[in-house]
Amino acid sequence: MSARRWVGQPVPQTDIDAKLAGATRYIADLTVPRMLHAVIVRSPISHGVIRHVDTSRARQVPGVHAVLSAADLPDRRFGPYGEDWEVLASGKVRYRGDEVAAVAAESVAAAREAAALVTLDLDELPAVLDAHHATEPDAAQIWEHRPGNVANAFEIARGDLDAGWAQADLVLEDTFTTNRIYHAYLEPVGVMAEHHDNGSFTLTVPTHIPYKARLTYARALGVRPQQIRIVVPPVGGSFGAKYEMLEPLVAAVLARASRRPVRLVYDREEDASIARPRPPFWFRHRIGLRDDGRFVARETRVIGTAGARLFWSPSVLATAIHRVDSLYHFHAMAGSGHLAYTNEPPTTAMRGFGNAESLFGVEQLIDEAAERLDLDPVEIRRRNIVREGETTLHGWHISSSQLPACLDRVAELSGVRERRGAGEGAGERGTTGLRRGVGLAVAHHVSGYRPILADYDGSAAIIRAGGDGRVTLFVGEPDIGQGQATVFAQIVAEGLGCRPEDVALHGVDSALSPDAVGTLASRATTLAGNAVEAAAADARAKLDRFLEADQGEPIDAGPDGFAEELRRYAVGHCGLPLLGEGVHRPPTQMPNAEKYGNPSSAYPFAAHVAEVEVDTATGQVRVVGYWAVHDSGTIINPSTARGQVLGAIAQGLGWALMEDVTLDAGAVTNPNFLDYRIPGAGDLPDGVVVEFVEGEEPNGPHGAKSLAEAAINPVTAAIANAIHDATGVRCRDLPMAPERLWGLLQQAPAPRDREEVTV
Amino acid sequence: MSARRWVGQPVPQTDIDAKLAGATRYIADLTVPRMLHAVIVRSPISHGVIRHVDTSRARQVPGVHAVLSAADLPDRRFGPYGEDWEVLASGKVRYRGDEVAAVAAESVAAAREAAALVTLDLDELPAVLDAHHATEPDAAQIWEHRPGNVANAFEIARGDLDAGWAQADLVLEDTFTTNRIYHAYLEPVGVMAEHHDNGSFTLTVPTHIPYKARLTYARALGVRPQQIRIVVPPVGGSFGAKYEMLEPLVAAVLARASRRPVRLVYDREEDASIARPRPPFWFRHRIGLRDDGRFVARETRVIGTAGARLFWSPSVLATAIHRVDSLYHFHAMAGSGHLAYTNEPPTTAMRGFGNAESLFGVEQLIDEAAERLDLDPVEIRRRNIVREGETTLHGWHISSSQLPACLDRVAELSGVRERRGAGEGAGERGTTGLRRGVGLAVAHHVSGYRPILADYDGSAAIIRAGGDGRVTLFVGEPDIGQGQATVFAQIVAEGLGCRPEDVALHGVDSALSPDAVGTLASRATTLAGNAVEAAAADARAKLDRFLEADQGEPIDAGPDGFAEELRRYAVGHCGLPLLGEGVHRPPTQMPNAEKYGNPSSAYPFAAHVAEVEVDTATGQVRVVGYWAVHDSGTIINPSTARGQVLGAIAQGLGWALMEDVTLDAGAVTNPNFLDYRIPGAGDLPDGVVVEFVEGEEPNGPHGAKSLAEAAINPVTAAIANAIHDATGVRCRDLPMAPERLWGLLQQAPAPRDREEVTV
Repeated sequence: MSARRWVGQPVPQTDIDAKLAGATRYIADLTVPRMLHAVIVRSPISHGVIRHVDTSRARQVPGVHAVLSAADLPDRRFGPYGEDWEVLASGKVRYRGDEVAAVAAESVAAAREAAALVTLDLDELPAVLDAHHATEPDAAQIWEHRPGNVANAFEIARGDLDAGWAQADLVLEDTFTTNRIYHAYLEPVGVMAEHHDNGSFTLTVPTHIPYKARLTYARALGVRPQQIRIVVPPVGGSFGAKYEMLEPLVAAVLARASRRPVRLVYDREEDASIARPRPPFWFRHRIGLRDDGRFVARETRVIGTAGARLFWSPSVLATAIHRVDSLYHFHAMAGSGHLAYTNEPPTTAMRGFGNAESLFGVEQLIDEAAERLDLDPVEIRRRNIVREGETTLHGWHISSSQLPACLDRVAELSGVRERRGAGEGAGERGTTGLRRGVGLAVAHHVSGYRPILADYDGSAAIIRAGGDGRVTLFVGEPDIGQGQATVFAQIVAEGLGCRPEDVALHGVDSALSPDAVGTLASRATTLAGNAVEAAAADARAKLDRFLEADQGEPIDAGPDGFAEELRRYAVGHCGLPLLGEGVHRPPTQMPNAEKYGNPSSAYPFAAHVAEVEVDTATGQVRVVGYWAVHDSGTIINPSTARGQVLGAIAQGLGWALMEDVTLDAGAVTNPNFLDYRIPGAGDLPDGVVVEFVEGEEPNGPHGAKSLAEAAINPVTAAIANAIHDATGVRCRDLPMAPERLWGLLQQAPAPRDREEVTV
Repeated sequence: MSARRWVGQPVPQTDIDAKLAGATRYIADLTVPRMLHAVIVRSPISHGVIRHVDTSRARQVPGVHAVLSAADLPDRRFGPYGEDWEVLASGKVRYRGDEVAAVAAESVAAAREAAALVTLDLDELPAVLDAHHATEPDAAQIWEHRPGNVANAFEIARGDLDAGWAQADLVLEDTFTTNRIYHAYLEPVGVMAEHHDNGSFTLTVPTHIPYKARLTYARALGVRPQQIRIVVPPVGGSFGAKYEMLEPLVAAVLARASRRPVRLVYDREEDASIARPRPPFWFRHRIGLRDDGRFVARETRVIGTAGARLFWSPSVLATAIHRVDSLYHFHAMAGSGHLAYTNEPPTTAMRGFGNAESLFGVEQLIDEAAERLDLDPVEIRRRNIVREGETTLHGWHISSSQLPACLDRVAELSGVRERRGAGEGAGERGTTGLRRGVGLAVAHHVSGYRPILADYDGSAAIIRAGGDGRVTLFVGEPDIGQGQATVFAQIVAEGLGCRPEDVALHGVDSALSPDAVGTLASRATTLAGNAVEAAAADARAKLDRFLEADQGEPIDAGPDGFAEELRRYAVGHCGLPLLGEGVHRPPTQMPNAEKYGNPSSAYPFAAHVAEVEVDTATGQVRVVGYWAVHDSGTIINPSTARGQVLGAIAQGLGWALMEDVTLDAGAVTNPNFLDYRIPGAGDLPDGVVVEFVEGEEPNGPHGAKSLAEAAINPVTAAIANAIHDATGVRCRDLPMAPERLWGLLQQAPAPRDREEVTV
């Protein structure tokens, strides 16, 4: 490895100035000539037969150009995982908020006025508002093609489970539940649709999987994928919510009907009301151990809530069931689960993607096992974790892991071994019943996931370096606000010889960018990063060949001479910019029919310790210390990497303690940031410690692997383990809000071996 | 030459549907967030000292964000040909309309209100309103750095002129004048400027030479060229007017001052008032011939009007003085001329670019010589034209010419030889004094011109063919409405194996497109077309190599299989689109210090015959027949090529008979389409005949060479020669409007050998 100039440096984010100045143009900032505004008319009931949708009065409102219901559209069902999407609901409504009609008008006010005049004649049906009841015989049927309301199921088994259980000296089994979480991105959903006279569309959509989304949209609109140009504008956060959405289709059919461009932008309340939150899961986890702490068997049963339609919850379910087997050797396992349709808002993927949900329970069970076996929580994990070079039960190959070193380092930094069970360090505030505890959890994730697209994994990149010294990078993986542009700019600068600030990441546009799997499964840095590195090397090699042949003056090496090098290249090629192409084919495998095979080329790891202070009088938990040590291979940008981890800790803390999308008879009751509070700076402890143990991942660009999701995965479990350490109470349901914890504290005996500290 | 599938076909224009539907977005359709509107405050006098510009009241108008005068700007002079541009006039105003101050406000109305409140304190100076008086000793001085008001001069001489004149049996000498012509594009000038916090600009400007314009704009704004991104929107016509303009700079300084995007769009009156028309020229042409009709010598003296600043008139002057020497062998020549500064609107290039102006006189003199020597007008030209394979007096190499065949064909079609002088075919209307006549003129032009950029000639192209089967083409030569997109699409389709409608020409954007000389000097098809052909071949070769190595099913050849071929390529390259690069280096030479050297790689030719009907009672001329036969090498698209020729005939007819930008004390008196009438369909004869004699130009793509300007170059002369044939009157001044012709008819004897036809 030669010395790196830019990789490893805390380069400021290349797009931060525009964002700070408010100059970045999100969908709500975009206007096009003759643009109309769309408003959706939603079902006021959870379940019912649509007898009639009367749009006649709405059409009379001045400025209204189109009012559509399913009656105006072809009868077409589609969807990323099931045939359960419609652009507008036909036949039945299936949740409070279901899209029944849509209006396009010259102002939002006119569109709202018209929407209010659309009359829905509905015959209400009994509603299914609980995933467990959904599959009972007496439950109402939501989708005719899925009797029993089983939307999706996943099953996997590996190893000799009977033998495993037979070896077990200790078996722990418990139920854990995780909850609906609103992605709470800064930018509510917004889309723009344009329909062209040749039948094609331009959809400006903040999706992070434009290529995949286009396939769904093409089916929905009855066109070929190439008839849809997808342009990804700057994305004000997503965290998984904006993969594939219904909104672009509503805007698209309005644009087609009105022959005008149509913009649809939610306000916060509408966004949070239809939400499509993280799917709530019910887990029954069972693990078996020998008395030396070695795992021998695992079983899990998972029930999740799909809501009224399948968005990306099926992949989340599968992950929740079997990903943990690439973190720990359980030697034998069986997992099964299903998603139930309910008459509730559809759910979808969120950062952590089932793995975080699963680890909330597994990492608590492991902690409990350590306690039962009187083992150090670090040690019990060390004895079971999958190591570098090993292949897991499902055939996943761990090409690098610094998890052992991360465990050591987080233990050293936090003192979790010594401080655990000590009840020391209780709060200094004058409140009765403050108890402190520390908790450890580890986690892992993937860096890409082979099965997302059937056709290929990997990534491609194009570099255009102009005669003016400016470099433009094209990849198909959108920056969704996570700093991807900067990381790529550093990789380009490293390979091409420019400065990161010379490199602009072009927004993804299906007419300009490479096709791509997209920005999901923590894949962008690792997979696209490799392609970017290859493209930079390709461009540099072309430039060097040219300069060698060129008879001009020698140019000083380094970024100062770069613009002049490019100028000469362009002049020598009649204006042609220097182009570089890069392709990265990762050594991944499509899992076979038995779901065996390595789906990711790199696995990141993390070990977190949380320290909490619990007010036993109220159940209120404050996180007062946090240590996060990560193995994400080489850290390309320590500043943005630290930002990712801090953001994940905050997001995980909110999930653990504060956040919960609450429903009342199927309607979201807290669709705003007053009633749905996310953590602010004051909710985070001072001095969060973030460190990286940098190994070199052989499959990553400059040795890097992913970070974004691994960083949230251990947070809820670390906090839960810390709460248990502080109080002796094990909270198996999220969120661990004061009212819930207070209730548990009332039932629990005083913690063993622990004095209550009063100040 | 293998059979061509698309080249040579009348493929419909690929962008025509959007234009017809009004979906094409010109500048006036573009809005961006926080955009302001600009209005320019102009000088009400032709010449004066600026004592003070008071913007204080203007600044108070609600909604006004910036009011600027030269006092607010750095003292910086620049310009494409002289140091005589300023963003806003400082020290002096130099024409009625000179840009003195500028306002940016939230509405056009507010900006206009504020502009009206800007008070100019000016000391009026004597004005120079005539190019001939401009250089007299008593004329006022317009620019201190150019005493005598000579803005620019050009001189050239070649061969033994004394020997030439000594050989001459006949010498003809006369004065001809050409007039100010408004380009009369459909879209008035409009620009958008954005200033970014890092000091850079994005200028959306309908220029056809973005790369060159950027150099000028960078000097003006005191930034490096790479700090300006130039985006070329769809251009609603230009004909040379929009090469480099002042308006983007006015918008840019307003954007910088207001920290808001600024759009400046002229209405027709403002556009036509500042006009920057075709420069009026005064020619003194002298030619010498032997009695066999062979030319032996030529001299020319040209005086042109620059107006108050130099736009692109200097290149026009040079062309007017010496280009005709690559059409005819004069064997010895001397030419000189200058442009005078006047206190009038600046002039600039227009289609035909001096060559058309020059030919108006030369082709009349040749006709007169033929008459004097009793030679057939076809024959006298045939004896003197430069032939294929020859090198001209100035070192210009004629790589192909079908002009002899064009002459034969136009004579055959029109019957000009037989009908000339016959006075036959007079009008059948019942008007006294209708006389018909036919006139021939030939012309040529260049296909690119080496000296435009110092660094390079030629062109580059990039093709991006996506996995969805869509092809995007990037060149640096903007489509300015002439159908370039379609011609390029055909070339791509031919080489790549797709259909023309699969190919979209991407708008020129300095961040995406190749650098380029631009769309001027009739160069786009020939030079960029070659680069496009090379890029298509490069892409096809890559695709073929891939498909050969690919183990998939064979794919049917031809466009039907193309999308599947691309899909496989993308899948096989992890999403990478197929990229092709093409560079074309033409065999041109930068003229040396003696102005010798071949500046163009191909020369198009044309032979036109006009038939007119002159109402001798009124001087009114109707063009009643027109035959145009062209050598533009291979015709890539007969439909768009025919459209180019028809458009040029109409434009030339307007110039010849109707159009004239009139000034009164320096102010344009006809800045609208009522007072400045351009030809409508009713002004054109029925059944204009357009034919092409297709040779293969060795330096052109698929054998093609240019067309756009060659097609207007002979029109005024052909009509003038026809008028002379009809009436015996030679009109040496443009326009040949009824009042002028009537005057000449009053002075002239009845035409010789001609009966007046009365019906």
